[in-house]
Amino acid sequence: MIYDLAIIGGGPAGYTAAELAGKNGLKIVLFEKNNLGGVCLNEGCIPTKTLLYSAKVYHTAKDSSKYGVSCDTVSFDLSKIIARKNKTVRKLTAGIKAKMLDAQIETIMGSAEIISAKIGSIEVACNNQIFIARKLLICTGSEVIVPAIPGVDKTAFWTSSEALENKEIPDTLLIIGGGVIGIEFASFFNTLGSKVIVVEMLDEILCGMDKELAALLRSDLAKKGVEFHLKTKVVAVGDHQVEIENENEKCLLEVSKILLSVGRKPVLNGFGLENLHLELKGNGLKVNEFMQTSNPDIYACGDVTGFSLLAHTAVREAEIAVEHIAGRNTKMSYKAISGVVYTNPEIAGVGKTEENLQTERINYAVKKIPMTYSGRFVAENEQGNGICKILESDDGAILGVHILGNPASEIIVIAGIAIEKGLKSEELKAMVFPHPTVGEIIKETL
Amino acid sequence: MIYDLAIIGGGPAGYTAAELAGKNGLKIVLFEKNNLGGVCLNEGCIPTKTLLYSAKVYHTAKDSSKYGVSCDTVSFDLSKIIARKNKTVRKLTAGIKAKMLDAQIETIMGSAEIISAKIGSIEVACNNQIFIARKLLICTGSEVIVPAIPGVDKTAFWTSSEALENKEIPDTLLIIGGGVIGIEFASFFNTLGSKVIVVEMLDEILCGMDKELAALLRSDLAKKGVEFHLKTKVVAVGDHQVEIENENEKCLLEVSKILLSVGRKPVLNGFGLENLHLELKGNGLKVNEFMQTSNPDIYACGDVTGFSLLAHTAVREAEIAVEHIAGRNTKMSYKAISGVVYTNPEIAGVGKTEENLQTERINYAVKKIPMTYSGRFVAENEQGNGICKILESDDGAILGVHILGNPASEIIVIAGIAIEKGLKSEELKAMVFPHPTVGEIIKETL
Repeated sequence: MIYDLAIIGGGPAGYTAAELAGKNGLKIVLFEKNNLGGVCLNEGCIPTKTLLYSAKVYHTAKDSSKYGVSCDTVSFDLSKIIARKNKTVRKLTAGIKAKMLDAQIETIMGSAEIISAKIGSIEVACNNQIFIARKLLICTGSEVIVPAIPGVDKTAFWTSSEALENKEIPDTLLIIGGGVIGIEFASFFNTLGSKVIVVEMLDEILCGMDKELAALLRSDLAKKGVEFHLKTKVVAVGDHQVEIENENEKCLLEVSKILLSVGRKPVLNGFGLENLHLELKGNGLKVNEFMQTSNPDIYACGDVTGFSLLAHTAVREAEIAVEHIAGRNTKMSYKAISGVVYTNPEIAGVGKTEENLQTERINYAVKKIPMTYSGRFVAENEQGNGICKILESDDGAILGVHILGNPASEIIVIAGIAIEKGLKSEELKAMVFPHPTVGEIIKETL
Repeated sequence: MIYDLAIIGGGPAGYTAAELAGKNGLKIVLFEKNNLGGVCLNEGCIPTKTLLYSAKVYHTAKDSSKYGVSCDTVSFDLSKIIARKNKTVRKLTAGIKAKMLDAQIETIMGSAEIISAKIGSIEVACNNQIFIARKLLICTGSEVIVPAIPGVDKTAFWTSSEALENKEIPDTLLIIGGGVIGIEFASFFNTLGSKVIVVEMLDEILCGMDKELAALLRSDLAKKGVEFHLKTKVVAVGDHQVEIENENEKCLLEVSKILLSVGRKPVLNGFGLENLHLELKGNGLKVNEFMQTSNPDIYACGDVTGFSLLAHTAVREAEIAVEHIAGRNTKMSYKAISGVVYTNPEIAGVGKTEENLQTERINYAVKKIPMTYSGRFVAENEQGNGICKILESDDGAILGVHILGNPASEIIVIAGIAIEKGLKSEELKAMVFPHPTVGEIIKETL
């Protein structure tokens, strides 16, 4: 039998594409070598958010006197927190399995290998079987980058995967890399009592997010005890020692554990990609606006393209690829992809940052107010700070929206829709935002 | 001196209109007889949400073991909860005062009385002074309805105002009226330990919200110990006894306290309205789509119009009125006004309900999934239930969206924007919702 579409990788791109294409009546085979759900569900978004929520509950209980509530002794049991995380992951993985069954997807658990790609006939081997499909979707995702720091090969460091399984709180945790993953773990371990040290090569954490908000979040975390070393390189690591260097000094830090979070890179090996001779762009697979690679029968979505590395980008790309396979030419749009950091407080942004606009020499005006302009924010965030910043073009178009304060993650999509749909400030401001909500801050800022 | 606009009432409609008009360069006088912010800020939305958040913190601490956290003895101090509520209100009232100063509004604290309204010259008296304005905006708001139940005049009942100031938790609280206000207080006092009894005349609580979701919330509250009497009338009240009657039985309930929340009515007396002979509609002031009353120089916004009774409606109406005064003919639209109930879990809806559509004989399709389809919802709501329901027209337009589950209040505006802007299901589904968020449930449902 010939499948309409073979999909390698069952993460957000893979399972979304499979479900949609399956519901469209296509015959699909989906290969997954580890667990359905991919990194996002098994070792990324969902597990971290489950842990961070436990940390938030712990913080809420410890902080409850601000709200007229008192808790005598507040403690946590990390093994229970991890167990709940595992249960949550199992529950959601089961949900994806059910979806695949429902959409009549043939799911093959095993390592796929692309054998050849002739027009209309792509051969993939898996578990000693050959599968033939008319089209192929590659969504093999990404893997942790382990930088070549002297000593790293002899050190029992964590990546996010090990940090998620760990059952003890390290006394001192040194995090190499102050990106989203590093900072979310910094927030988690800081809340649960670790002394956390973040070492970042750049001059600010959370590269890619609005720099002013990133600095505010950093200062908030610093007040809570997180130590930051910016513009600093790690020059050597050992199990309990890290040597760092910046323009002023070089010093040796004693640590209990090291978490490596310098970034992720596309997975291009181990599945026969070399047999296809596809074009690359940067460190990922080159795709066009319909998610086709340089071979028009072969699509690639998600982290393997190497430039967005976000589950929601992958989901949208998968929708675009399936639409294209079904004959509809919807183009992928990257102009309203939100970035979210699930610290407490959260930070979220969509569209351009000030830094982007300055680089691109685009004129813009800044509208910015504290989150305390929202009555609900004040009601629910005693002594809470935060900012909502909106960047507008000369003609009133919304270029970017950046929010520090809970629940930024949930309200940023409002701005995303406005940007994607090209709503002017005046139009968005004319919407009725329910009162009292934190989301009103967007209307208020405009 | 002649003012461009006199505004009677400093609630959400009044202060929004004043700020906007002031910033547009109009000369404004604003009369407020109690406190700036109106019922919403002083005795409504904000105080209740502050109390409900304290209750949520208490519940989170008591429930923390589900998330791997433990708290030995969890207790609360109602006087501290009330004190924090008062502080929150003071802070936000100060914010409104600052806005009024900033917009150069002349704010007169006192009871205004309309003396006469000639074209271009409307006379209002306040604190023994006469003020003359070209236009007038009436936003005197609404007041609690006290139904003529036998015994009510001799009973020391609460309205929401007294319930907000109370420093003791009643053993048994009987709430007459299962609307939004009644149910929010039911949730609050139930969480803090009262035995709560809700008596509602209709066959379901939360009239106007999606009936299926209201029933689910009721069943959730019932599991937590709230007792409901639907299709039941209160036939007599006393300080500690309430007689109720339905088609099956008549019985006497022993209670510690009674909360009256059968509704609110427009304030039409006490400010010289009788001198204007304006047309009424229902029990409120009749207005056109620009918020003009039957006298085109006189506008009315907010609860005094008698049909929406929501702060965010009032705010939008005030914007429309000021736009019209400034010469722009934007029409008021009521098609995407969200309704929110801040119980735990929250319930929120926007657009048409199934009940509306059935009454209006409009064809519709229902898309409905449990909230547990959202990974973040699962991560943050152990054993939490909920539903997202979307009603679509035959041509794929979104007619209504109804959500039970936190934070419904913050994500319903996404649906509101889609409805207001006439986005089809397919268009809203094509938006990139950040992952993992609860808001994704909207995309998933579509």
